[in-house]
Amino acid sequence: MTSYHMSPEEFRANGHALIDWIARYMENVEQYPVMSTVEPGTIREKLPGTAPEQPEAFKALLDDLDNVVMPGVTHWQSPSWFAYFPANSSPPAILGELAAAGLAVQGMLWSTSPAVTEIESAVLDWLVDLMALPQSWKMSGPGGGVIQMSASDSTHTALVVARERHDVPVDRLVVYASTQAHSSIEKGARVAGYKHVRLVDVDGNFALNTTALAQAIEKDVASGLTPVFIVSALGTTGTGAVDPIDAIGELARRYGMWHHVDAAWAGNAMICAEHRLHQGTLENVDSYTFNPHKWLFTNFDCNVFWVADRKPLLDALSILPPYLRNEASDSGQVVDYRDWHVPLGRRFRALKLWWVLRSYGAEGLRHHIREHIHMAKELTQRLEIDDRFRLVAPTDFALVSFSHVNGDAATQGIADAINDSGKAMVTTSRINDQTFVRVSIGQTRTEQRHVDELWKMICDFA
Amino acid sequence: MTSYHMSPEEFRANGHALIDWIARYMENVEQYPVMSTVEPGTIREKLPGTAPEQPEAFKALLDDLDNVVMPGVTHWQSPSWFAYFPANSSPPAILGELAAAGLAVQGMLWSTSPAVTEIESAVLDWLVDLMALPQSWKMSGPGGGVIQMSASDSTHTALVVARERHDVPVDRLVVYASTQAHSSIEKGARVAGYKHVRLVDVDGNFALNTTALAQAIEKDVASGLTPVFIVSALGTTGTGAVDPIDAIGELARRYGMWHHVDAAWAGNAMICAEHRLHQGTLENVDSYTFNPHKWLFTNFDCNVFWVADRKPLLDALSILPPYLRNEASDSGQVVDYRDWHVPLGRRFRALKLWWVLRSYGAEGLRHHIREHIHMAKELTQRLEIDDRFRLVAPTDFALVSFSHVNGDAATQGIADAINDSGKAMVTTSRINDQTFVRVSIGQTRTEQRHVDELWKMICDFA
Repeated sequence: MTSYHMSPEEFRANGHALIDWIARYMENVEQYPVMSTVEPGTIREKLPGTAPEQPEAFKALLDDLDNVVMPGVTHWQSPSWFAYFPANSSPPAILGELAAAGLAVQGMLWSTSPAVTEIESAVLDWLVDLMALPQSWKMSGPGGGVIQMSASDSTHTALVVARERHDVPVDRLVVYASTQAHSSIEKGARVAGYKHVRLVDVDGNFALNTTALAQAIEKDVASGLTPVFIVSALGTTGTGAVDPIDAIGELARRYGMWHHVDAAWAGNAMICAEHRLHQGTLENVDSYTFNPHKWLFTNFDCNVFWVADRKPLLDALSILPPYLRNEASDSGQVVDYRDWHVPLGRRFRALKLWWVLRSYGAEGLRHHIREHIHMAKELTQRLEIDDRFRLVAPTDFALVSFSHVNGDAATQGIADAINDSGKAMVTTSRINDQTFVRVSIGQTRTEQRHVDELWKMICDFA
Repeated sequence: MTSYHMSPEEFRANGHALIDWIARYMENVEQYPVMSTVEPGTIREKLPGTAPEQPEAFKALLDDLDNVVMPGVTHWQSPSWFAYFPANSSPPAILGELAAAGLAVQGMLWSTSPAVTEIESAVLDWLVDLMALPQSWKMSGPGGGVIQMSASDSTHTALVVARERHDVPVDRLVVYASTQAHSSIEKGARVAGYKHVRLVDVDGNFALNTTALAQAIEKDVASGLTPVFIVSALGTTGTGAVDPIDAIGELARRYGMWHHVDAAWAGNAMICAEHRLHQGTLENVDSYTFNPHKWLFTNFDCNVFWVADRKPLLDALSILPPYLRNEASDSGQVVDYRDWHVPLGRRFRALKLWWVLRSYGAEGLRHHIREHIHMAKELTQRLEIDDRFRLVAPTDFALVSFSHVNGDAATQGIADAINDSGKAMVTTSRINDQTFVRVSIGQTRTEQRHVDELWKMICDFA
């Protein structure tokens, strides 16, 4: 019988070669310019205009990783990656992704592979303890956690659930967040059909001002609108600011709003007890999301979404067609995660998270997160005592925000020069009509020497 | 410096061991019962109640693939997998997923790794030619394609875009699909806030009845509602029925509706010219989605979504915060795929699709899809001439739908006995108040002998 399949024997040889390629990449990643410098269209021009008619050897594919792909890679896994937020990874995470791809099960229902659902539930319960979240968020309580692709998906899901709880037309509902909230809130609200999103003023540290929030709510209520959704940021994208979660929760409770905590990046630091003051009691919180794929050594995608009560979530998202019915689901004894998000299909993402938690141990994870934060605070001190620079915001976690005292051009000049050097990558943002440099420390292999080299460049280019 | 990281050297050794484990799984997959037989809670009980404090050796993780995971795996990659639709995979896809995890780039913007965006665009353009879709859907035209997680996500996205095109409250908008349309349409509509979804009658072959559709539209228009969205199924989930896409497109054009083609599974067969009569001219189609992760040897997740015109999509989904601004995006010369879907982050899923297309060649892909369809038609013939069975629907592709002439209990009995045997897995569904067995042929390694064995069981258990 004709077969075009790669045999298991060939897979073994090709797989070993690819593992070796990745190991070499890990060893050599510092040698590449961090930011790809190709012009638009360069990579595409290396590809033929049509798919090959005949099979190609695996060797050709592997060679093209170097020839076609690498020039177009911006190296998120470089230890000199200080741009955006990290999307860090680690060897056990890569291997977990490989194992999941090798099994290639699709866990839409408990019955379509019980291990997918049960390991996911167990591992998210582990995280409840590791991060000191409310015990009632465990699967044994009224709440529960689920892995989604991104914080954008989780926030959008929460917005949909909040909308469905009200028998009021969506154009009368109001969503609140601070001016510093992530764009996924505005986008998720638009996708969910909301017409009113209030971006509330922040205080001097860029955290949401609850007085301004209370005023905005009162104004909307007076105009006959219905406040339904409020986001607390635990670590804003701009400067890492933390909103007063407990105070916001109190307002949420008073007005019957869904309270969503967006801890996409800084949630990871909650595994360290000394940072938990930032998240408060989480008493009046309805949902909470964070990304192990940002700062917990678990490659993208791996977002976690908890709800304090799973009932409104399931009420909003469950639809049961006849071709998905099965005895286990009908029994009510199992969790079918398809009802916890928009997509039906799902891959075994819990496997890599499980492997990361076990491979590092809680101790190892805390150690490396603390190192990142330590390096960030130390860099902050250097900036603080150097009168060429101005800190734009406090460094609570591992994001350092600063500008040049000579203004925007000088500030942007530092960032551009660093990025053009190829030796490191940072991003800029704007706040209060001022450009600033964001130095986000969190790549798996970032060490003090990488931050020192960055500091040297900052000084040289200042 | 203390480090809890697995070194590149350890990664190499552990990676080889895992590759070998997967190769053995490929070789032995037929020896496992296809459907996991564990009771709810069994897998979870094998896990400790809390995360380990200390690191564990990789050996322990690998051992637990056998001890903890395997009992809870339902083997989607068994060649005797005939349940649901396939979610097939292949060695080059697994390796592509591994390479993507190894690079661990995040392609939210063109500039965050140009190779992610440009290879994705190129490969989706290849598919336009392979499937004979309209040339204007290529990135060089007004349209374009993007990879999403699932067809549910693509359908939901299309529903949002359609909603945003109208300055009419969402509770006045109407969505149409046949009674046989996938549950993701009803779910996507609910998530997008629609209040009116009309499930239109089907004809004797379970394809949408356009007369009934026209009547439903007229009735809604007469009541002051606005028809905005119609789904054509190219291969329904129940029986693989194909709606009259061109005729539906004509109605969509007349009433100004968004016309979405859900070709999640059967779209894959469009790489074979002899099946393209089913999709017609695609002239009045606004969006089209199919899943290479179902039947094109590319492991989940890999869904493709094309729009005929990308402008309304970008109008609905683009939001540009200051921390994502960059020169390339500002120049307008590049595609930023974050604006094409709900999530912001995205991994390098195009890599595995690229590797599959190259490793099989178009010829290899067509060969194996044709083999699956051939086996399905041959099984259909056996059922047709056996008076114990009744075919429930025609077999246009690789899904065979039949029932036992003695009624539901006998039909369900066949499915249950097959699944309990552990030797194969099928699913049942219901149509016209009748239970039927779905035999979906499409796992990568399914050969005639597996279908023969299934047929023997069908006869034995009849």
